Amino acid sequence: MSIQQRIDRALETAVGACEARGAAPRLAAAIRHAVFPGGARVRPQLCLAVAAACGDEAPPLADGAAAAIELMHCASLVHDDLPCFDDAAQRRGLPSVHAKFGERIAVLAGDALIVAAFDLLGHAAEASGASARRLPALMRVLAARVGAPFGIVAGQAWECEDWVALPDYQRAKTGSLFAAATEMGALAAGGQPQHWREFGEHLGEAYQVADDIRDVAADEQWLGKPVGRDHKLGRPNAVAAMGMAGALTHFDTLVQRSAAAVPAGPGSTGLRQLLRAEAERLLPPALVVRCAATRERSAA
Amino acid sequence: MSIQQRIDRALETAVGACEARGAAPRLAAAIRHAVFPGGARVRPQLCLAVAAACGDEAPPLADGAAAAIELMHCASLVHDDLPCFDDAAQRRGLPSVHAKFGERIAVLAGDALIVAAFDLLGHAAEASGASARRLPALMRVLAARVGAPFGIVAGQAWECEDWVALPDYQRAKTGSLFAAATEMGALAAGGQPQHWREFGEHLGEAYQVADDIRDVAADEQWLGKPVGRDHKLGRPNAVAAMGMAGALTHFDTLVQRSAAAVPAGPGSTGLRQLLRAEAERLLPPALVVRCAATRERSAA
Repeated sequence: MSIQQRIDRALETAVGACEARGAAPRLAAAIRHAVFPGGARVRPQLCLAVAAACGDEAPPLADGAAAAIELMHCASLVHDDLPCFDDAAQRRGLPSVHAKFGERIAVLAGDALIVAAFDLLGHAAEASGASARRLPALMRVLAARVGAPFGIVAGQAWECEDWVALPDYQRAKTGSLFAAATEMGALAAGGQPQHWREFGEHLGEAYQVADDIRDVAADEQWLGKPVGRDHKLGRPNAVAAMGMAGALTHFDTLVQRSAAAVPAGPGSTGLRQLLRAEAERLLPPALVVRCAATRERSAA
Repeated sequence: MSIQQRIDRALETAVGACEARGAAPRLAAAIRHAVFPGGARVRPQLCLAVAAACGDEAPPLADGAAAAIELMHCASLVHDDLPCFDDAAQRRGLPSVHAKFGERIAVLAGDALIVAAFDLLGHAAEASGASARRLPALMRVLAARVGAPFGIVAGQAWECEDWVALPDYQRAKTGSLFAAATEMGALAAGGQPQHWREFGEHLGEAYQVADDIRDVAADEQWLGKPVGRDHKLGRPNAVAAMGMAGALTHFDTLVQRSAAAVPAGPGSTGLRQLLRAEAERLLPPALVVRCAATRERSAA
């Protein structure tokens, strides 16, 4: 079974469970809409790639961890799109959950997805025999990377403060769930999470800088959601803080740091390739060229 | 240490962890405001009373379970008070979280509290030695009683549907977290959750009917929050559905069913006393008298 199929199967288990006979129909439909069709599923792929690099000795637990992280990501998108935050009518080229189902169902669908993520992790542990002993550590990482004081929820909360250091904000808002992906992938496979944390954190920070760049420079159709939101909503943005050239250089530095942080081992070459491919996918095509040119100049 | 002290200590651990140095200050303050000072802490008290009746052989795990349930309850109050739901400016006689900290922080505080509940449960399991093996079952109950398709989140979602059966709605919206309290109290102490479920479910349903009665008949100052909300918001309400006399009789029946469902054992008399005291506390004083009179008439 491919990585993508493993992820989809675990997500389908969680979403299907919310659609049991007698479920409130709009909530069930909103939960499915939030999860399927998905985006690039970057975080769960990263989780399973790290689990593979650590020997993938408990696949059901790794699948549960990967899908739990994706459910948390979907929950955060549903809540971030709410009228009180981004007020985004579109997500992944479709109506956002609140645009399609209303604000109340969107709040509840996000809540239900957070619960479903922990539920899936618990079920995966139960199904993984002796590896179930890893459940408390997996829960600790997932909770720390999602909740207060330093997870993605806290990252979003920094948008409500008068002042925030841009790297702290980016590390919490996006970096933390990438760190969860690498740490939990290692943990689920019996590896050492602390060896994988930096790789995920740098990649996540790079991902947030790329998001900031796209918000300024991308085409709305290419992106599948509105652009120019950060400026409109007064949110911290790397391009606003350091200019386009500065942001591109920063992005490139973070990708290189992330590549350098991949622990040596049989899977390290493959992981670095995955990282490079992902980095190219993240930027609008014209900027990928510009980024490569900058890199060559600084290497010369 | 008293039951109340055990609950407060576990809650303080969870809330304090959200206030670590470097935390986003408004989010941290909102989380504390949502949890302290608390209401009657009925659900965690119920959880620990059942754990005691089952032998209370793993107190740290029971404390974690009890406080996790209360954190979920606090999360649901914060989200229910949002402008898109009840738009309640007051809670427990103080400003609601969204009134004090804004809508965005209220959404995030609710999210963080859900995460903190699972986190606390995981930490409690880690601290409870061999009883940690009960963690997956505890997570399964907590997730089922909070999330979709049949937990309190789903109960709230029924308010967004055109039609709902009143008992289904009340069972999910309030009954389910009371059932979690009795089931998790039993589970944490190594007891049989299925023997304790009905007790919690009936009590929870009674609690919701009492809430409906108070919404119609209570004094705003006595209640600490606005009254007449159900009618204003077009929500299902037991008094609207069956009249005041019908609702009072129904409440009394549910309390009696709950008392009858307490499993026989050394703690059963104490639990029934707790239940009677709780039932009296739930209704405005004048209605307690009326309820007792109805009970005497039907016994005559």
